[in-house]
Amino acid sequence: MRLRGRKGIREAIEKQRDLIVLEPALYKGKWAEVFGNGNPIHVELGMGKGQFISEMSRRNPGINFIGVDMYDELIRRASEKVRIAHGIEESAVDVSLENIRLALFNIERLEEVFDENELERIYLNFSDPWPKKKHARRRLTHAGFVHKYKHALNERGEIHFKTDSRSLFEFSLNSFADLDLRMRNISLDLHGGFEEGFNPDHVMTEYETKFAKQGMNIHRVEVVLGSRALAEHVERLQEEQQS
Amino acid sequence: MRLRGRKGIREAIEKQRDLIVLEPALYKGKWAEVFGNGNPIHVELGMGKGQFISEMSRRNPGINFIGVDMYDELIRRASEKVRIAHGIEESAVDVSLENIRLALFNIERLEEVFDENELERIYLNFSDPWPKKKHARRRLTHAGFVHKYKHALNERGEIHFKTDSRSLFEFSLNSFADLDLRMRNISLDLHGGFEEGFNPDHVMTEYETKFAKQGMNIHRVEVVLGSRALAEHVERLQEEQQS
Repeated sequence: MRLRGRKGIREAIEKQRDLIVLEPALYKGKWAEVFGNGNPIHVELGMGKGQFISEMSRRNPGINFIGVDMYDELIRRASEKVRIAHGIEESAVDVSLENIRLALFNIERLEEVFDENELERIYLNFSDPWPKKKHARRRLTHAGFVHKYKHALNERGEIHFKTDSRSLFEFSLNSFADLDLRMRNISLDLHGGFEEGFNPDHVMTEYETKFAKQGMNIHRVEVVLGSRALAEHVERLQEEQQS
Repeated sequence: MRLRGRKGIREAIEKQRDLIVLEPALYKGKWAEVFGNGNPIHVELGMGKGQFISEMSRRNPGINFIGVDMYDELIRRASEKVRIAHGIEESAVDVSLENIRLALFNIERLEEVFDENELERIYLNFSDPWPKKKHARRRLTHAGFVHKYKHALNERGEIHFKTDSRSLFEFSLNSFADLDLRMRNISLDLHGGFEEGFNPDHVMTEYETKFAKQGMNIHRVEVVLGSRALAEHVERLQEEQQS
């Protein structure tokens, strides 16, 4: 990807202080205040160019979204997508009525940015597979990260993870299984598989649009962490079984 | 597969009464007596031509194996492999000292053949995927079957499942997850994947040998059902985490 000069990027993101949060740790425990309401907060960790979170936030006005990335150029590009998706003029600076923010930080610092029970859902989309074993701890589904997610998620907390990397998906399933977490809707071929088929309501990322066109498999799983989410999930399964 | 005339097959298997069990329900709760010892019993449901169970039984003399299939021609062919693997002459009729039997029955009848806690492990290898949704109940990892396995398995009970069918594997992972069963060593590419790589001790089935050569993915998972197996698994994970 051709990157703009760093100075230009900084200027571009500095101008969008209401959409882009450059010091997110200041809002730990106060994200509801940032959005001005108590709606559930869904976070995408590693949002890349922002297609997924732009579209999700447009479709779901009752949910607050935070797109996280550590690269300021990606934050800048995502900000453009958000503005287009929400029909916000580039000159408009005040997006305080909107249900989306973009936050610049390294996911390692998650605990500095989100308080206990502050989030309802974490999206991990096409995370870096870190194929070498010595880098296993950097994979975003490694136990070390999952413990951080668990802390930040509330009683309705879920992780939704998708990837084109079979190896990362395999690692992730084992990571979740070894942590004794409840998985749901496991898909090894999101856009194919048994007759159940593809859900047209599914929002795709940039990578996904490209890979799916090339016929590559997309893998996906939901992890149900929150006590209330888990109770409701079990209840639904029991109802299905009885019907 | 070219099948022999039914009469010839029947004659061939009738002659091997000590290796082949034609009325397995007679031994419900008495399989330890059949083998003449209290060693753990591992069963392969749908053994096909018997390469896997022949080799497993040869390598593991301290375990009793039962290969199950509903087709008498497959039972006959498997009996040949068992004799070769164990170096038993075809003319020898008495295999009562051996750790393997082949049983002819439909897996639907599992409860008529094995008593509660009678088995330690169930192998499902390359089971029929039954791709149509209306046949989902026939898939050997459907909840209906898993309940039967759970009943027959003891406190060390595990299910080891492998398949080349991505769709069946996806279905199975969801089936196990929805039953809240503990999965372990999930592999989406048994002979590839991250650096962990292929375990040369792994015994392959006929299908697997062929598919692996063609570069097809083999999927595999272990399900830990027995209370004691589960406790030991959790203990091992905790030790790994601490080291």
